[in-house]
Amino acid sequence: MLVVMNTNATEQDIERVIRCIESKGFEARVCHGETKSVVHAIGIKETDKRDLKLLNGVFEVLKISTNYRLTSRSFQNDDTVIEVNGIRFGDKYTGLIAGPCAVESYEQMDKTAQELSESNVKILRGGAFKPRTSPYAFQGLGEDGLKILKSVADNHNMAVTSEIMDVSQLDIFMKYVDIFQVGARNMQNFNLLKELGKIHKPVILKRGLSSTFEEWLMSAEYIMAGGNGQIILCERGIRTFEHHTRNTLDLSAIPVIKKLSHLPIIVDPSHGTGLRDKVEPMSRAAIAAGADGLIVEVHHSPDCAMCDGAQSLYPWQYDLLYKQIKQIAPIVGKEIV
Amino acid sequence: MLVVMNTNATEQDIERVIRCIESKGFEARVCHGETKSVVHAIGIKETDKRDLKLLNGVFEVLKISTNYRLTSRSFQNDDTVIEVNGIRFGDKYTGLIAGPCAVESYEQMDKTAQELSESNVKILRGGAFKPRTSPYAFQGLGEDGLKILKSVADNHNMAVTSEIMDVSQLDIFMKYVDIFQVGARNMQNFNLLKELGKIHKPVILKRGLSSTFEEWLMSAEYIMAGGNGQIILCERGIRTFEHHTRNTLDLSAIPVIKKLSHLPIIVDPSHGTGLRDKVEPMSRAAIAAGADGLIVEVHHSPDCAMCDGAQSLYPWQYDLLYKQIKQIAPIVGKEIV
Amino acid sequence: MLVVMNTNATEQDIERVIRCIESKGFEARVCHGETKSVVHAIGIKETDKRDLKLLNGVFEVLKISTNYRLTSRSFQNDDTVIEVNGIRFGDKYTGLIAGPCAVESYEQMDKTAQELSESNVKILRGGAFKPRTSPYAFQGLGEDGLKILKSVADNHNMAVTSEIMDVSQLDIFMKYVDIFQVGARNMQNFNLLKELGKIHKPVILKRGLSSTFEEWLMSAEYIMAGGNGQIILCERGIRTFEHHTRNTLDLSAIPVIKKLSHLPIIVDPSHGTGLRDKVEPMSRAAIAAGADGLIVEVHHSPDCAMCDGAQSLYPWQYDLLYKQIKQIAPIVGKEIV
Amino acid sequence: MLVVMNTNATEQDIERVIRCIESKGFEARVCHGETKSVVHAIGIKETDKRDLKLLNGVFEVLKISTNYRLTSRSFQNDDTVIEVNGIRFGDKYTGLIAGPCAVESYEQMDKTAQELSESNVKILRGGAFKPRTSPYAFQGLGEDGLKILKSVADNHNMAVTSEIMDVSQLDIFMKYVDIFQVGARNMQNFNLLKELGKIHKPVILKRGLSSTFEEWLMSAEYIMAGGNGQIILCERGIRTFEHHTRNTLDLSAIPVIKKLSHLPIIVDPSHGTGLRDKVEPMSRAAIAAGADGLIVEVHHSPDCAMCDGAQSLYPWQYDLLYKQIKQIAPIVGKEIV
Repeated sequence: MLVVMNTNATEQDIERVIRCIESKGFEARVCHGETKSVVHAIGIKETDKRDLKLLNGVFEVLKISTNYRLTSRSFQNDDTVIEVNGIRFGDKYTGLIAGPCAVESYEQMDKTAQELSESNVKILRGGAFKPRTSPYAFQGLGEDGLKILKSVADNHNMAVTSEIMDVSQLDIFMKYVDIFQVGARNMQNFNLLKELGKIHKPVILKRGLSSTFEEWLMSAEYIMAGGNGQIILCERGIRTFEHHTRNTLDLSAIPVIKKLSHLPIIVDPSHGTGLRDKVEPMSRAAIAAGADGLIVEVHHSPDCAMCDGAQSLYPWQYDLLYKQIKQIAPIVGKEIV
Repeated sequence: MLVVMNTNATEQDIERVIRCIESKGFEARVCHGETKSVVHAIGIKETDKRDLKLLNGVFEVLKISTNYRLTSRSFQNDDTVIEVNGIRFGDKYTGLIAGPCAVESYEQMDKTAQELSESNVKILRGGAFKPRTSPYAFQGLGEDGLKILKSVADNHNMAVTSEIMDVSQLDIFMKYVDIFQVGARNMQNFNLLKELGKIHKPVILKRGLSSTFEEWLMSAEYIMAGGNGQIILCERGIRTFEHHTRNTLDLSAIPVIKKLSHLPIIVDPSHGTGLRDKVEPMSRAAIAAGADGLIVEVHHSPDCAMCDGAQSLYPWQYDLLYKQIKQIAPIVGKEIV
Repeated sequence: MLVVMNTNATEQDIERVIRCIESKGFEARVCHGETKSVVHAIGIKETDKRDLKLLNGVFEVLKISTNYRLTSRSFQNDDTVIEVNGIRFGDKYTGLIAGPCAVESYEQMDKTAQELSESNVKILRGGAFKPRTSPYAFQGLGEDGLKILKSVADNHNMAVTSEIMDVSQLDIFMKYVDIFQVGARNMQNFNLLKELGKIHKPVILKRGLSSTFEEWLMSAEYIMAGGNGQIILCERGIRTFEHHTRNTLDLSAIPVIKKLSHLPIIVDPSHGTGLRDKVEPMSRAAIAAGADGLIVEVHHSPDCAMCDGAQSLYPWQYDLLYKQIKQIAPIVGKEIV
Repeated sequence: MLVVMNTNATEQDIERVIRCIESKGFEARVCHGETKSVVHAIGIKETDKRDLKLLNGVFEVLKISTNYRLTSRSFQNDDTVIEVNGIRFGDKYTGLIAGPCAVESYEQMDKTAQELSESNVKILRGGAFKPRTSPYAFQGLGEDGLKILKSVADNHNMAVTSEIMDVSQLDIFMKYVDIFQVGARNMQNFNLLKELGKIHKPVILKRGLSSTFEEWLMSAEYIMAGGNGQIILCERGIRTFEHHTRNTLDLSAIPVIKKLSHLPIIVDPSHGTGLRDKVEPMSRAAIAAGADGLIVEVHHSPDCAMCDGAQSLYPWQYDLLYKQIKQIAPIVGKEIV
């Protein structure tokens, strides 16, 4: 931590800063610049920099350590690769996940999975517990939904991913689900993250609606600090002023996260745009930017979907998209199965 | 719902829209304007307007119903007043809550409560489970913290409020806490909101970091739909581009919420600004704007606080503030005990 | 315009709304729904919907006309194609513009142009008047800069684009520049836009830092209403909470604008990311999303650049990028010269 | 400037950073911490920190100087007080400005001024050149508007303020206007700011829609660096996700700016909220937070206003507000004439 003093800070001001730094268990060292002095707080500890900021004569307090450690590139230089059902995410591999927003019935899942299997999909998504803004909206089929999802996936030799909303759902998810999803609204549900740190299954951690990259990595750090390093980060759009799209898909997350962290990063163009006709161009863009995967909403009959039909592709659209991105991936040094 | 057609929409486009509206269980009625036709979807149902937006010839789809019902002014015209330990929030009453960010020890709580009781504080705050961005930061004393909080409050004839982070903590909170707090990060933890709908104690529901007023009221609607109408909304600052303050306190929330809803709204100037010297002016501003209360962080010795000391007032500062706002409140037709 | 009445609005409330609508020169027509009535204001006029919103019994006022007309897809269905020096922007054509942030000297421009001509660049960019946040920063070479830019471009058979900051610079820009650029900070400099409506040269209109798509199109409308339809929209990143990148490049602008408007849209990945190593992936992504062009900062020696060197590519990097995007373009049905 | 090296940075990395720092004309000095080394760049120069950020082994580059100098509290410790027509802004003085959004006619201005003079208003506002999002909206009366404004103000012994949009309007503004206004959209119209640095009249500089405090002070710095220190900063709301209010009035600007700068800061609650019934509570809040003044839109007959009637107070509302804030001001140590 660096405490930058005001131009007109007195010797007493600097003394006070040094005492405060030392009282927090750091070593203090002063460097004098042309107009400003800087006091270094040497040591590795969590502390609140605002305590120093409020002292007399202090211009600014700067943290020089990242808070994320295990998830950082400097902790592990090689890309983490996560493999599920033969599909790999990370390094040169780009994995694909597809399926409807919500599990609605056995028939709906089976028809959709059947179509998707023809486009080589090996991991099936489907929500059983739905986080809805309104208490009056469809809340998902619950455990019955997970059973349908698992059973359909088994029939089609697919693995399964679904969103967990609460610690209390952990046991039933362990029974049915291969990859856990943490939704944007739960990115900082720290109790849930701690529990996911104890399991031995991959976790897709979606970026919060207005989270910074650092906060996102800190949430991943919660999981990794618990012992589970199988984390896939998922960019799904952030909130901005623009309302023509449901969210603003921040594709620069891909190169930025790849520099900061060794974890794979995938993109959800369905929530990221909210409209079917924007999913295709943004999916291609994600692949061209080097994404380690996509998770795309596809429904066998989107017009009848109970949830988010408007952002779900028709199966034939997914197939077309699949063919396009298979061409783009090798141009950027990536491989799609 | 209103489906506005494009200027050049055909009769067939309109027919298709009508069929889609009817298939969703609404009645359809067409109105022709000078350049655009509008199809009304008449009925009260949850539906996804994007399904219609994607149809040919559709310019825009507009919802004309609010999603919040029980929490709206049109459901209940009179202000809800919530009373705890003789302190009232809502209508002409302005209630005050104060205390440290986190419960650290019996001694710390007792000293702080002692000082606050001299400024007429009747409701004590203190966090026992702390939502921290970093897994390596102080996470709170847990149930021991709640015990200390309750015991100290009893000694000083105070009621108690603390933040609940997870459904699993519900039982122990029922034992110790008079007012439940839901933090900004949990504003859309829908499982938690549903459970809080079943209890018979007041809930302070903080606004999410980037939530709209409507989303906030929808979260309150979850609690109220469950049967618990004792909800106090709390503005605590939103995320903006500006980083001189921790958050940007949106005081316009006060007049806006008062128009939309009958629920009381209080302000947290401590998280809303993040720096002690901004707490005093923003507290006064909140009262002048007509807030139904304040929740302020005060620590008997902020420089030694384990958490958020930088935004905690010294007890003498709180006392000064108390005297100022007691003068301002009557000017705006409010009453502070 | 649609005026949605409250559930409990009285006949008198509706009457008052009708009178207000008529006093503004619209025709009023009432439609009754199940719970709410809607009054249509029929006619095409500019008006402030808040006047109606403040009337008793009004729930919401909704505009159903776009404010942009000439720039909208419904005014002109075919893509506008703009051609400069054999390079085309729009429809199936993707045009490329490259060059340094600022004109620094003849030598710098000449070296850069020489390198770029080997990568087939036909339009050279370079700033002569620089909008700098600080009055103490390098403000550009002014007219001398434009002379250098023009002279170097002539030598290399290139056309020229540069940013105009003020109406007073119009005459000298007409002498030297083939494509005018309006920067993000001037997107709503309406006096400047009006003057650019009178010229007969193409204008690149950059999106403001926090502008919506509609505001952007409204600014284009100023130019087009003046008589100049040669407008190229340029997405250059918006301001969000994230500071790892200088701005957040919103690539969804591409499919959204293409749906709303017939104007071509290009992308500036240099300002959009602010860091050289993010320019390449985001450029590829822009092309994959269907952009009609790119404007990229390239400097013959970025480490010595007087301005924005950190976001400028080395010429060899640009060449590599050029080869990649030439491969991606045909996959999405576009053509790069 | 401080260049923080990565934990695993090599000696060569540090050497390279030192050479780069020295090549930019700074002196370099290395400080070794427990895990990270920090290289100080000592000297006062404008430079782009990203050049250093891109070097191998660099973790972060931190600026430790403010870019604003003349406008900073450390340049001048005492509050700047600006006086116009006996009304003072700054230090313990709170000045009030009122009037309609736009000058519409002599009669409208005269009626409004007459009413306002009864509430002791001494400075009249009114727009003659209006920055409108749409080219089809009322653009103001131009110079005729300024003439009316000046003539009416003279009759009522008032001073006059109006918004200048462009350098070309400077001469006519000098004839009629006592205080220049720079609107939010022109906060970074640097050519205009430079010209305003040369005049000897006060300038109200509004905060941009998404500007940081630092950018705002940098724009003031442009004016002050030109020689004109009579600057009044005006908070008028920033753009956020919330649309119930036109903008989000950021009242924390008041205490923050007062700490950073010696310049007076006033508040525009009319644009800051956009709705008449929010103007009153937010005006009171601004005064309670310590604002140095208000600029409020008042129209003798808001329902007939050509522009922004919905956010204009009726004269009797202004009078009521005036009486309330006169009571609040002394509680916070301020004085209203």
